[in-house]
Amino acid sequence: MGEHPLKKLMFPRSVAFMGASNNIMRMGSFLLVNLIGGKFEGPIYPVHPKEETVLGLKAYKRLRDLPEVPDLLVLVIPTRLVPDILEEAGTLGIDRAIIVTAGYDEVSSEAGCELQQKIDRVAEKHGIRYVGPNCIGIYNAFIRLNTTPLPNRMAAGKIGMISQSGTYLSHMYPYLERLEFNFGEGISLGNSASIDLVDTLEYFEERPEIEVITMYIEGIRRPREFLKTARRVSKKKPIVALYVGGSEGGGRAVASHTAALAGEDAIYDAAFRQAGVIRAWSIEQLLDFSWAFATQPLPAGNRMAILTSSGGPGASMADCVTRCGLKLPSFSRETQAAVNEHLPHTGTSANPVDVTYTKDPDAFLHHIPKALLEDDEIDGLFLYGFFGADWLVKLDEAVGGGYLGGEPEEIRRMGAARTEALIEFLLGFGKPVMGSTFLDNTDSMVRDMRRGGIPMFPSPERAVKAMEALCRYRTLKDNRP
Amino acid sequence: MGEHPLKKLMFPRSVAFMGASNNIMRMGSFLLVNLIGGKFEGPIYPVHPKEETVLGLKAYKRLRDLPEVPDLLVLVIPTRLVPDILEEAGTLGIDRAIIVTAGYDEVSSEAGCELQQKIDRVAEKHGIRYVGPNCIGIYNAFIRLNTTPLPNRMAAGKIGMISQSGTYLSHMYPYLERLEFNFGEGISLGNSASIDLVDTLEYFEERPEIEVITMYIEGIRRPREFLKTARRVSKKKPIVALYVGGSEGGGRAVASHTAALAGEDAIYDAAFRQAGVIRAWSIEQLLDFSWAFATQPLPAGNRMAILTSSGGPGASMADCVTRCGLKLPSFSRETQAAVNEHLPHTGTSANPVDVTYTKDPDAFLHHIPKALLEDDEIDGLFLYGFFGADWLVKLDEAVGGGYLGGEPEEIRRMGAARTEALIEFLLGFGKPVMGSTFLDNTDSMVRDMRRGGIPMFPSPERAVKAMEALCRYRTLKDNRP
Repeated sequence: MGEHPLKKLMFPRSVAFMGASNNIMRMGSFLLVNLIGGKFEGPIYPVHPKEETVLGLKAYKRLRDLPEVPDLLVLVIPTRLVPDILEEAGTLGIDRAIIVTAGYDEVSSEAGCELQQKIDRVAEKHGIRYVGPNCIGIYNAFIRLNTTPLPNRMAAGKIGMISQSGTYLSHMYPYLERLEFNFGEGISLGNSASIDLVDTLEYFEERPEIEVITMYIEGIRRPREFLKTARRVSKKKPIVALYVGGSEGGGRAVASHTAALAGEDAIYDAAFRQAGVIRAWSIEQLLDFSWAFATQPLPAGNRMAILTSSGGPGASMADCVTRCGLKLPSFSRETQAAVNEHLPHTGTSANPVDVTYTKDPDAFLHHIPKALLEDDEIDGLFLYGFFGADWLVKLDEAVGGGYLGGEPEEIRRMGAARTEALIEFLLGFGKPVMGSTFLDNTDSMVRDMRRGGIPMFPSPERAVKAMEALCRYRTLKDNRP
Repeated sequence: MGEHPLKKLMFPRSVAFMGASNNIMRMGSFLLVNLIGGKFEGPIYPVHPKEETVLGLKAYKRLRDLPEVPDLLVLVIPTRLVPDILEEAGTLGIDRAIIVTAGYDEVSSEAGCELQQKIDRVAEKHGIRYVGPNCIGIYNAFIRLNTTPLPNRMAAGKIGMISQSGTYLSHMYPYLERLEFNFGEGISLGNSASIDLVDTLEYFEERPEIEVITMYIEGIRRPREFLKTARRVSKKKPIVALYVGGSEGGGRAVASHTAALAGEDAIYDAAFRQAGVIRAWSIEQLLDFSWAFATQPLPAGNRMAILTSSGGPGASMADCVTRCGLKLPSFSRETQAAVNEHLPHTGTSANPVDVTYTKDPDAFLHHIPKALLEDDEIDGLFLYGFFGADWLVKLDEAVGGGYLGGEPEEIRRMGAARTEALIEFLLGFGKPVMGSTFLDNTDSMVRDMRRGGIPMFPSPERAVKAMEALCRYRTLKDNRP
């Protein structure tokens, strides 16, 4: 078996780009800006009929003027020009392309469909494999390749994103950045004329750095192959999917978006189940689940413990745990005793453990989570109630300073050290741990926890639902031949 | 009918505070910091047995040393001291208090319950009405009164928050601040020993500035009075509620949190329906719904239009609209024609309208939304795809600058002016309009839209579900005597 056709497309050594100009307000320019700004290491060759340079790079009049045959060609040119340019590219030996240009099958005009057929013929003649048309391109953090309209400056993550929406690839970068996780690679499929879901699944199957496959699906073109492939791949890596085409409104929307043939929701639902695909019900949930899979081990069972310093989020999590079909067991006498040792008299050692307020940070940040994670009858842990040391520093500043009992820098340093110790300790048990917070990364502890690999979800219920996804996947794995 | 007993408590002219010290790491100190830092205009009197000053304010040794009888007394003192201090306060004529101190009914110890009975007797003897015990205090933006542990620096909003969790009052401030909306007033009820849900509902009923009532409920103590009151109040103002006590896990959690007697979920669900209360299913959703009610008019019906520049979020919204039972009608010939006039050939004028990419900002920001909102057969509008001008400026900077076709400041100014015009125009139709974005407020357009009163939800589905809540409330109102 040779190299997967997507490998060269996702890891090109050089990229030619047609359709950007020195007017930054154009779609093509958006994309080239990020290709340049993302610091892709290989050569980038803008092709432009008139300009000497485009966005600061030397430009070439025609494809045949390029100093080498590029591994990848990106096209953001007018709809009807694509077949001829592709013909020229094929003649030159270019065999991988991204066709961002839209206006084909998805507009369901005769002209659009004819142009698509022309593209098909040219691609077949020259052995060209391409992503699109009507897509937004690709993102590969491992080689800092980004042909999409938004910048992505984060480290490479373990998530492989397959999206029938360019937005759900590229518009997510700022969202992911705020939560401190990232895609490793992402492919916006567009109309999937040459490369489709199945190809991409196969590709990510073989990519060792990709440990979670995330899919936004509008419709599946090759259902039989999809089922077979997903069934195989999901045994190795979790596949999480959002499918929006199954309702009347969704079905109508996707038809004009990517020309997808959406199918009944119940059929897709059954297919996902058979194939071991974990279904999500919103884009937010798709990414929540992916985050959990990318950072946490699978729980051995579904017996959960909750540790909180706030009753409300504790009760929300407890409520959601039960509603999701997870278990919230009462603790053994030993565990209760171990917890009680560190609890103030206002606290409770039932499940949820609510410490309310304690003056001893080690109780909340070490002794009690230790007692819970050491319990063999507990498979996973939820946390709520972390604030970084700079919260105290800010409180102190609000009343003029001097009430901290120490220097602000020292308080910050101690807080950071405590967080580091907590993360190492939490990850050491091999059990999934998830937190939630209403703060953002301006809080140092929330930021450090996220960077350290503990997902801190923006709401308590979202943490619980992500845990439920891990449990669902484990059950699926356990019950398959 | 006299003034509601909560009025004096929520609008005190002076506050005495017992339980803060010059060690900022203590619970009482957290609260006093925010009372001081929030710039409450009346006098604040810390009471402390030893210190001359507390957090920079002159301190008094005992309550009887205060220069006046304060309107409100806040207690964060040891559990067993509360009855005696309250007795002293009552003797002095203090008749409103917040008892933050915990350790009473919620710990279900004999000692705790006895202390609560003592408090009851003292309160009755002196006519003291109090919030708590085991609460986090109150927040009143109208007089900048904040006795909770987190600062809140936003303008007063229209939401009255009633919470059986202190966290779901105070920890939400940074979350609300990020989304640019705020509570007007908020009350953390704790164990609800003197002031409960019903009292607070009655109070907010009379507050003209409060237009939406938001409730986090662990259990209802006076179900009959609650039903009667909620039924009456919900005719005037929407009431949105999250109830977490109805599941096995939730019921157990709330018992030890606020000593609430939770009831079966189905019973609460039916009661909410009867009382015209809009139920939410997570804390995030509770606030989403409240945000929508606080900013948008009610839709006349449930026929929705979607306008997007991105197919994925368009499809997600369309899918969610149908799943929520809202309608996504096909447009009339006139509306389609009006939309088509401004659409590029890659766009679609079906519902969702997907403009894909257009070079004409007025198409997306004026002409097309105008056509949709002018359509009598459309009751509400969803938007996706806004980016502020600084996004362009940042793109330009990423490639060294100079490709904007204008000065960055001018581009920013034009962008801000366009956003301002858009907001005014969108609000002028008297139809609900909601957007969504994956950006945060570092994007100027997202920030300005939120500040201008267009809720921009953090995900497309959340916008749709919030609209559904408005539709549900309108239907409830229409179908009531």
